Amino acid sequence: MKFYDCSTAPSPRRARVFIAEKGLLDSMERIDVNLREKEQMTPEFAKINPFLTVPVLELDDGTRLNATVAIWRHLEETHPEPPLMGRTPVEKALIAQWQWRIEMDGFQAVGECLRNSVPGMAGRGVTGKHSYEQIPALAERGKLRAERFMETLDEAIGDKPFVVGDAYSVADIDALVFVDFAKWIKVAVPDSCANVARWYASVSERPSAKL
Amino acid sequence: MKFYDCSTAPSPRRARVFIAEKGLLDSMERIDVNLREKEQMTPEFAKINPFLTVPVLELDDGTRLNATVAIWRHLEETHPEPPLMGRTPVEKALIAQWQWRIEMDGFQAVGECLRNSVPGMAGRGVTGKHSYEQIPALAERGKLRAERFMETLDEAIGDKPFVVGDAYSVADIDALVFVDFAKWIKVAVPDSCANVARWYASVSERPSAKL
Repeated sequence: MKFYDCSTAPSPRRARVFIAEKGLLDSMERIDVNLREKEQMTPEFAKINPFLTVPVLELDDGTRLNATVAIWRHLEETHPEPPLMGRTPVEKALIAQWQWRIEMDGFQAVGECLRNSVPGMAGRGVTGKHSYEQIPALAERGKLRAERFMETLDEAIGDKPFVVGDAYSVADIDALVFVDFAKWIKVAVPDSCANVARWYASVSERPSAKL
Repeated sequence: MKFYDCSTAPSPRRARVFIAEKGLLDSMERIDVNLREKEQMTPEFAKINPFLTVPVLELDDGTRLNATVAIWRHLEETHPEPPLMGRTPVEKALIAQWQWRIEMDGFQAVGECLRNSVPGMAGRGVTGKHSYEQIPALAERGKLRAERFMETLDEAIGDKPFVVGDAYSVADIDALVFVDFAKWIKVAVPDSCANVARWYASVSERPSAKL
């Protein structure tokens, strides 16, 4: 398998941490796509992924998966241990629920803020081949949503070791990437969110978090 | 199981069509939440779903699932036939990929346009307990993204009977709901998108599409 990654960006990290937790990172050919140099916008990369984003996982049969959820799903099916998307139907459903919630209300909120405020992303308010002007009000709203989402995450974690149930899952991966990504827009874990702080200290210690 | 639905809204329709395709709709207690009367904003409903949205599926053990992806996942695991999320690992991954793409670039784009432009949704730019002012530029951007996504969907469908592979799936459900939802913001399938038009005519004929 070929893994199109970018070591400095949050989106491919969601896939990379998963791959590392499955013990598969060393078995893949890893191609670092330099997003700072806009390498994902080149005609060469458009042939790999017409949506011009990383991560992309190219399977041995040539199929290219260009969405993190698709990469996760494929690897969970083909390499089930350790399970990162739940064991029982209820656990699988709750992990899907929290992963989606964290992606929508946390990760996307930070992305909205960043893409719509950073001068280097002018005209890049949305990923992909079309140019969209930045919307300053959306940047403000994204930051506010990210701040508020810390409270939601804190309640969700409670006194548990992980976001859902008693095992590390894609919900933890997305929450970890959210908390680290939020630093880019100067949103830190507030003192009121002690559960997030404790959980974050713990999951950040995993070897997969450091890659 | 108890299914909190709203017969006039697009979000719960994503779950309802799935439930109907599984043949489970008649086995559930169905509660219609009147979104036009803002019934989802009441303290009573907040106890059912603190995120103040439908759909919600309450399982027999009391667990409440408040994200469509979670409802789908639980029912796919407990009632596998007919599979609506793929059979093989590659099929499962490609369905996950297109479902996500259609939700993000199609369904959410329409929602952004609607929430940020309709006078009745003033202060409701985002779902949930917090009020967010409408952003007119985001409404415009959402409409443009929805129009452009018709072309993406047309390419994805090509000459196939379904969005992915040879079976109806959650990718078709989200694409169907997207096309119908887009009418709310006066975005129709353009003449250039003959594949979408043909596919839409076919999937709209399924009994599940009419519920």
